[in-house]
Amino acid sequence: MTKEHDPHYQDVLKISRIAAHLEAIQSLLGWDQETYMPPSAIEFRSQQHEIIASQIHKHQTSHDFQQALSNLIDLATGQIKIPSLSNAGKAAAREWRRDYLKNTKLPLSFVEKFAKATSISQHVWMQAKQHNDFQSFAPHLKNCIELCKEKANYLGYEEHPYDALLDLYEPGMKTSIISPIFSKLKIALKELIKEICAKKNPSYPFLLREFPAVQQLEFSKNILQAFGFSNEYSRLDQSAHPFCSALNPLDIRMTTRIVNGYPLSNIFSVIHEAGHGIYEAQLSIHEYGSPLGSAISLGIHESQSRFWETFIGKSHAFWRHFFPILNKKFPQSLSDVDLNNFYCAINEVRPSLIRVEADEVTYCLHVILRFEIEIGLVEGSIQVEDLPEVWNEKMIDLLGISPLSDAVGCLQDIHWSMGAIGYFPTYALGNIYAAQIFQAFEEHHSNWEERVGMGEFLFIREWLQTHLHQYGREFTPCEIIKKITDNHLDSTPYIKYLRDKFTPIYNL
Amino acid sequence: MTKEHDPHYQDVLKISRIAAHLEAIQSLLGWDQETYMPPSAIEFRSQQHEIIASQIHKHQTSHDFQQALSNLIDLATGQIKIPSLSNAGKAAAREWRRDYLKNTKLPLSFVEKFAKATSISQHVWMQAKQHNDFQSFAPHLKNCIELCKEKANYLGYEEHPYDALLDLYEPGMKTSIISPIFSKLKIALKELIKEICAKKNPSYPFLLREFPAVQQLEFSKNILQAFGFSNEYSRLDQSAHPFCSALNPLDIRMTTRIVNGYPLSNIFSVIHEAGHGIYEAQLSIHEYGSPLGSAISLGIHESQSRFWETFIGKSHAFWRHFFPILNKKFPQSLSDVDLNNFYCAINEVRPSLIRVEADEVTYCLHVILRFEIEIGLVEGSIQVEDLPEVWNEKMIDLLGISPLSDAVGCLQDIHWSMGAIGYFPTYALGNIYAAQIFQAFEEHHSNWEERVGMGEFLFIREWLQTHLHQYGREFTPCEIIKKITDNHLDSTPYIKYLRDKFTPIYNL
Repeated sequence: MTKEHDPHYQDVLKISRIAAHLEAIQSLLGWDQETYMPPSAIEFRSQQHEIIASQIHKHQTSHDFQQALSNLIDLATGQIKIPSLSNAGKAAAREWRRDYLKNTKLPLSFVEKFAKATSISQHVWMQAKQHNDFQSFAPHLKNCIELCKEKANYLGYEEHPYDALLDLYEPGMKTSIISPIFSKLKIALKELIKEICAKKNPSYPFLLREFPAVQQLEFSKNILQAFGFSNEYSRLDQSAHPFCSALNPLDIRMTTRIVNGYPLSNIFSVIHEAGHGIYEAQLSIHEYGSPLGSAISLGIHESQSRFWETFIGKSHAFWRHFFPILNKKFPQSLSDVDLNNFYCAINEVRPSLIRVEADEVTYCLHVILRFEIEIGLVEGSIQVEDLPEVWNEKMIDLLGISPLSDAVGCLQDIHWSMGAIGYFPTYALGNIYAAQIFQAFEEHHSNWEERVGMGEFLFIREWLQTHLHQYGREFTPCEIIKKITDNHLDSTPYIKYLRDKFTPIYNL
Repeated sequence: MTKEHDPHYQDVLKISRIAAHLEAIQSLLGWDQETYMPPSAIEFRSQQHEIIASQIHKHQTSHDFQQALSNLIDLATGQIKIPSLSNAGKAAAREWRRDYLKNTKLPLSFVEKFAKATSISQHVWMQAKQHNDFQSFAPHLKNCIELCKEKANYLGYEEHPYDALLDLYEPGMKTSIISPIFSKLKIALKELIKEICAKKNPSYPFLLREFPAVQQLEFSKNILQAFGFSNEYSRLDQSAHPFCSALNPLDIRMTTRIVNGYPLSNIFSVIHEAGHGIYEAQLSIHEYGSPLGSAISLGIHESQSRFWETFIGKSHAFWRHFFPILNKKFPQSLSDVDLNNFYCAINEVRPSLIRVEADEVTYCLHVILRFEIEIGLVEGSIQVEDLPEVWNEKMIDLLGISPLSDAVGCLQDIHWSMGAIGYFPTYALGNIYAAQIFQAFEEHHSNWEERVGMGEFLFIREWLQTHLHQYGREFTPCEIIKKITDNHLDSTPYIKYLRDKFTPIYNL
C-alpha cells in the first residue's frame, strides 16, 4: 500500500506510526480543550498534555527507532544505506533523519529549562499585555532570546544562527534566502499601500449589521460542502480562536468564531481553516505516520490556507457564486448591498495595528517587521529594552501608523513569550508560496474564474492534490515550489497578483 | 494534601497518577467517539485506543511501579511493610497490590489471544444478532467461555472459578455470597410480579406524544442543575447509548438519548448518568490516581446511578417538584395529565424481553437469569448449544414471557461476546446495594421526601459523599455496605422497598 515496500522501511514506519497516533491523541486533547472541555479541567488537561508529549518524544527518540532508521540511512552523514529504495523512500528516510536529529540534539536538561522559562514567560507576557507593562516582560523576553540562541547552537547551522530556528518550522529555509525576498516585497508593498492610501477609501457600515449566529454557521457549512467536505470525515465547531486540527486524513476538525455584528470573521476563518483542512484531508492515508503522509512545513501549510482564503475566497468569481446565497441568508442586512460593493468591502485595504486582522496588502509587512526585529535580537543589533521604540518606528516606516500602547504594539503576539523565534516568517512565506502556486494553477486552469463563479471547487482540490498534497514531505518547501512552478522562491508573483487585483478596486 | 504522607507512598502515587491521566485520555477517546468524532475516523480511533491501553498497562506493570509498591507491601503475601501507614494508606497499598496482581497474572500471550478472540466474537455476534442466527455465534461463545475459564485459572480462586471473574468487576465478591441473596430476591420478585400482573394495568398513551428535543434537553439540564452540576466541571451531550465518562472529578461528561415520542428515555438516562457523575465528581481530587480517589467497583457505581434514577428519580416526592416544571415545558402534551397519573406511568411494571428497558421490579430477574446461565456455562452444567432453549425456559419461569427470536433473547447483550463473564451480577448488586444505602439514608433524613418535594437535592449528595464517596476504595464493596448500614449484603431492604412502593401503586 505504501510507495516503499522495503522491509527495513516498514520497520521504521511501524514505530513512526505509533508516534503519529500519539500526536493525533495530542491533537484531540487540544481540540477538546478549545471546544467542549469543562473549564475546571484545565489543570489536569495540561498534565495529560505533558504525559502525551513525553510519550511522543520517547517514541521519536527511542533506541528501537534509532536502530531501525539506521538501517535505512547513516544518521551521522545522511548517506542512504539501501540503494534500492525508491526516491520517495529515500526522501522519507532523509526527513525521518532530520526529525530524529532535531529531537535528539537538545539535551533533556536544556529542553526542561526552555519549557520552564517559556511557561513562566508566557504567564508574565499575558499580565504585561493586560497592563500595558513592557518593562515587566523585558527580562523574560531577554532570557527567551538567550535560550533561543543557545538552542540554535545545539541545533547547529551553516550561515546564521537564525537559520537553525527557522529550520524548526520551515525545513531547509535560510535567512539568506528570505532576506532579499522580503526586502523586495517590502518595497513593493509600501509603494502599493501609498498609492491605495492616496485614494478615497469608502467605509462599509453594512458589515456591522445583525448577522444571527445560526445562519452564519449554516453559511459556513454551505462553503465547506461546496469545497467537498463531508460530515463523514470532518466537522465544524466554534472556539475563541479559529483553528484546524487534523487527527488524520479521516478526522479533520475545523473551528470558527461567530461574531453577530461582523460576519467576515466567520466567513474567512472558515475558508482559511478549510484550506488547512483540505491539505490534511488529501495527504496519503497509506503513508500515514511517515514523512510521505505529512505536511511539508508551516509555511506550505499556510500557503494552502491563504490560497483558499484570499486567492479563491476573496476573488470576485467566488462571490459571484456565493453572494446570492449569502444575501438570501441575511436579507434584512444585505438586501441593499450589491456584489461589487460587497467585493470591495471584503478587499478593503487599511493599515492597522494588529497582524491577525490585516488585509492582503498590509499583512506581510506586519510579518516582515517581526522578522527584521527577530534577526536584530538574535544578532544583538537590537536590544530588548529598545523594543517598543524600534517597533513603533518600524510601524511608522512600514504602515504609516503607530500604536498608542505596547499592548497593541510589541506585546500583541504570544509567539516570543513562547520562545518561538523563527516562526513568524512562515506567515509571509505562506502568502509568497501561495501566489507562486496560484500562478501555476492559473496556467493549468485559465478558466478557473468561470468555474468558481458557477460554484465548482473540486477541480481546485484535485489540482492541489496532484501537484502538492500527494507528495507529503517528499520534497522540501523550496524543492516543491521549484517542482510546481519551475521557479525558485520569489515574491514577484505575489506582488503582481496584488497589483493586478487592487488596481481596479482602488482605481490606481 | 493526601491522607497518607509517607514518602514511599508518594512514590507509588506518582507513577499511579500517570496511569490515571492515561486512563483519562482513554476516556476522552471513548467519549469523543460516541459524541463528536466523524464516522470515518473509527479505524484510526481503535488504533489510538490500542496504543493508550498498552501505555496504561505498561505503567501499571512497570518495574518502577513494582519496586515502589514493594516498599509498601509484600506483593507475594500482602503483608504491609510500613506499620506507620494510616489505615487509608494501608488500604490503598492493598488495592494497588490487588490491581497489580490482576494486571500481571495474565501472560501477554493469553491477553493477546483473548483480545483477538473476543474481537472476532463481537463481530460475529453483531452479525448473528442482526440475522437471528445463534448457530453462527455458538462456536465463538464456546471459545469465549473456555478462555474465561482459562482466565479464571490464571487469576486464581478459592472456592469457585466464577469468583475469579466476578472479582474483576466486584472486588472480593464471591458466588457463595451472591447465590443465596439472588435466590431470595428471585422468589420475592416472582411473587410480587404475580400479584401485580393479576391487577389491571392501564396504559399511558400520553407518553407517546410529541416532546421536542430542545425542550427535552432543557429539562435534563434543569435536573442536572438541581443536582448541583455546573458547567464549570461537567457537560451533557447526546449519544446513541447514554453513558457517563469521568476524566477526573473536574471533568464529568454525561450523555443522553433524546427520542421525540418517548420522553422517559431521556429523563431517566440523565438521572441515571447523573448518579454515576455525582459519584465521580465527589471522589477526592487530592487522592487522584490512587485507590483512595477511585470508585470501589462496578456494582457500587451502579448503586449510585440506581439510587438517583429509581429511589430518588422515580419517587413521588421527586415529581412533586419536577412535574410542574415538566408540564410547563410540554403544555401541548401534558396539560391533561396529573401528577399521580404521571407517577404511575413512570412506575409501570410490565415483564418485557429486554433488560435495558425493564422496570424496577422485573429488572433484577433479567440479571439473575444471566447469572444462573453464566454459572452453568462455567461449571459445564449448561452447554452453549442449549443456550436458546435454556434462555427461553428461564424467561418463562422468571417473567412469564418468552422471546420470539434469539435476537431479542439470548443474543440481546454484547457482554458475552466480549468475554465479560462475571459482569452481569454487578447490575443486580447495584440495586441491592442501593436499597441498603437508601435505607441508611432514610434513617438519617427521615424528612427527605419533604425536602426533595421542594427541589432540594444537595443534602443527598452531601450524605453520599460523607458516607461513601469520600473513601474511594478504602473499603471493599462488602465492607462499605457494612460500614454504612451496619449490616451484611442483603436483598431484604430491596424487597421491602419494592413491596412498599408498588403496593399502593397497584393496590395490592
